[in-house]
Amino acid sequence: MGMTMTQKILAAHAGLESVKAGQLIEAKLDLVLGNDITTPVAVTEFKKFGLDKVFNKEKIAIVPDHFTPNKDIKAAEQVKYIREFANEKEIVNFFELGEMGIEHCLIPEKGLAVAGDAVIGADSHTCTYGALGAFSTGVGSTDMAAGMATGECWFKVPSALKFVLKGKPAKWVSGKDIILHIIGMIGVDGALYKSMEFVGDGLNYLPMDDRFTMANMAIEAGAKNGIFPVDEKTEEYLKEHAQREWKKYEADADAEYDKVYEIDLSTLRPTVAFPHLPDNTRTIDNVGEITIDQVVIGSCTNGRITDLRIARDILKGKKVKKGIRCIFFPGTQKIYLQALEEGIIKDLIVAGAIVSTPTCGPCLGGHMGILADGERAVSTTNRNFVGRMGHVGSEVYLASPAVAAASALTGKITDPELV
Amino acid sequence: MGMTMTQKILAAHAGLESVKAGQLIEAKLDLVLGNDITTPVAVTEFKKFGLDKVFNKEKIAIVPDHFTPNKDIKAAEQVKYIREFANEKEIVNFFELGEMGIEHCLIPEKGLAVAGDAVIGADSHTCTYGALGAFSTGVGSTDMAAGMATGECWFKVPSALKFVLKGKPAKWVSGKDIILHIIGMIGVDGALYKSMEFVGDGLNYLPMDDRFTMANMAIEAGAKNGIFPVDEKTEEYLKEHAQREWKKYEADADAEYDKVYEIDLSTLRPTVAFPHLPDNTRTIDNVGEITIDQVVIGSCTNGRITDLRIARDILKGKKVKKGIRCIFFPGTQKIYLQALEEGIIKDLIVAGAIVSTPTCGPCLGGHMGILADGERAVSTTNRNFVGRMGHVGSEVYLASPAVAAASALTGKITDPELV
Repeated sequence: MGMTMTQKILAAHAGLESVKAGQLIEAKLDLVLGNDITTPVAVTEFKKFGLDKVFNKEKIAIVPDHFTPNKDIKAAEQVKYIREFANEKEIVNFFELGEMGIEHCLIPEKGLAVAGDAVIGADSHTCTYGALGAFSTGVGSTDMAAGMATGECWFKVPSALKFVLKGKPAKWVSGKDIILHIIGMIGVDGALYKSMEFVGDGLNYLPMDDRFTMANMAIEAGAKNGIFPVDEKTEEYLKEHAQREWKKYEADADAEYDKVYEIDLSTLRPTVAFPHLPDNTRTIDNVGEITIDQVVIGSCTNGRITDLRIARDILKGKKVKKGIRCIFFPGTQKIYLQALEEGIIKDLIVAGAIVSTPTCGPCLGGHMGILADGERAVSTTNRNFVGRMGHVGSEVYLASPAVAAASALTGKITDPELV
Repeated sequence: MGMTMTQKILAAHAGLESVKAGQLIEAKLDLVLGNDITTPVAVTEFKKFGLDKVFNKEKIAIVPDHFTPNKDIKAAEQVKYIREFANEKEIVNFFELGEMGIEHCLIPEKGLAVAGDAVIGADSHTCTYGALGAFSTGVGSTDMAAGMATGECWFKVPSALKFVLKGKPAKWVSGKDIILHIIGMIGVDGALYKSMEFVGDGLNYLPMDDRFTMANMAIEAGAKNGIFPVDEKTEEYLKEHAQREWKKYEADADAEYDKVYEIDLSTLRPTVAFPHLPDNTRTIDNVGEITIDQVVIGSCTNGRITDLRIARDILKGKKVKKGIRCIFFPGTQKIYLQALEEGIIKDLIVAGAIVSTPTCGPCLGGHMGILADGERAVSTTNRNFVGRMGHVGSEVYLASPAVAAASALTGKITDPELV
């Protein structure tokens, strides 16, 4: 029996000829990642081990992005704690403010995760780098600590679901709509501890930014990881960004999948996840009249240049409806600069939106746009759990940048075709 | 005995021929202002009065700027509370996000305070509008509530200090350096409950933005208000911004002053206020070696276009020193847009700074750049009290945008002439 793409990467990192679903393995890691919430816990664990050195100064990345620029004294103290650790251990990839970004936008941009890698990150959306053809998954802070010390992590080899994407999506259907559709179809536990492997000719219509969005949300279906084959678009991205050699893995022809889904992308519609789970989806045609207070466009899910371009195309020359707070969070300083040079930032400001520094912001109820009781947001982020973006009486509707931007103009959840 | 400029404005607003220092008067108000911290308290007081209507829907301005975009649930609830009040009372000038700014940058820009006005604001830096030749002062939330209800406020007529500014300041000496010099000279209670009236041919060298900075910090010497005569520069500003007629008042030739200070601006040097009081000043030549962690450029004191231009001139083509967090807070969306069109935002980003949405941010320890224990910031803000910007073990050094920008390049407090 052959291996899935994920299994092949894991076998290679475990130094094994082959692995099979359910097998426990110890794999060598290409990158160990943490943020300002999880790294302090990991550092304390690391110190408890009584260890002196990290396994590799270049294979650890620490990105304070959740509560930065420092939200409060506690946030400031946490960042200080991990900065001192990074300085002491001479960790090369510690990113602050001017060179910073939202971790899952920054890591691929900096070329720190590449095709064929095995990556762990103490953040659930570490699965994002599956878009590059890497095995990448979120872990707890203790695993991060052990990873920093040993450069290894144990895994139970996951089985897989195969998603065969066919056809060309319509104008306003993006990677976000596809992944919301899939999560709506299989449920928030539909891929529990499995790989989600995306294949098919439909990938030809999905630029890298859409793939990042889709891999990013694999965890919202409970997946261990999401992964895309390495094609021309991936190679092009890697050539521009990668800091080291990459390796292309392919699933065996006779790989076993728990289930195979065929999805005709041309039939999909812009899709919105209603409160309070990402699988509570409706197409834009069935949302009804949902008035909103706030629009959030950005985050590790949809804060890339393609996302900003789409939002700009919708907002340019128009005005955000009075009373609606429309906040943009570009993923990194580089994306911000790119958007600035393309005139996007100007168009957004003129339209009445505001543009924040790169930060996770309100996505996880952190800061920079928290909701009050009874308030509703349309957000391009990844979770809409109860109280995710503020008060337990608030509501988050997950959508694409196009739907979010259109909704900013009307004050209610809106089909981008209609604005 | 004649009247000071401030006394003339107060007499006119009290319907009296003349007033004298120490007299208690009831004055009609042209504007009543509040922010997201003080307005909730005022609204609750207003409701306790059992009142139905505000005195004038157009003469009240509410600007949520301190903890916005909403820092946390409490901030979100407070803004929601005052938004509902503003909607219910049909208050015209409620400014959020897309049209928002830091209140003391926004109010003059929107033309809501003009020469000859009597203005109260539930924020200590309401004295800023004295730059326009208005009487403008900070009050508590209860006075704001009474002001919203009656359009009047009682005052004890202040006596005055006269500052005769002579000569041309050197290249790197700005309004910030002048006001820091003055506060250093007279102390943080040197003008207690007095007017600070700025006159002299030195004003010819002070653009409006510098005057806003100086009037803004009058409170840091304990003053009731700071005020500038209306000259060509003021008229030009008012023609561009004012939403209504303005009136020019002049001090009588025989007006009485508690004290007259003559200051030769050509002798001043860039000036820094050391922790933990604004009067703890040293010239740049006497700062010694003070390493820093963070640079903050912006706020109601120095977040205007002139300030951003100066900082850009210093940072352009150079790089913020590694490890230094350099954060810009433009005063309003309009200033942000202007800076964007002048290429300033791009130059700052390329230099390794970050640019926030307009918000008071870390100035008062709010959010977006809070300091940890032992950290030091050079900041263009107005107060450096213990713990002002975060942990009680942190330190704030007040300076001009030029000194702050130069310090961002070197990582220590630096003379802009030397970078």
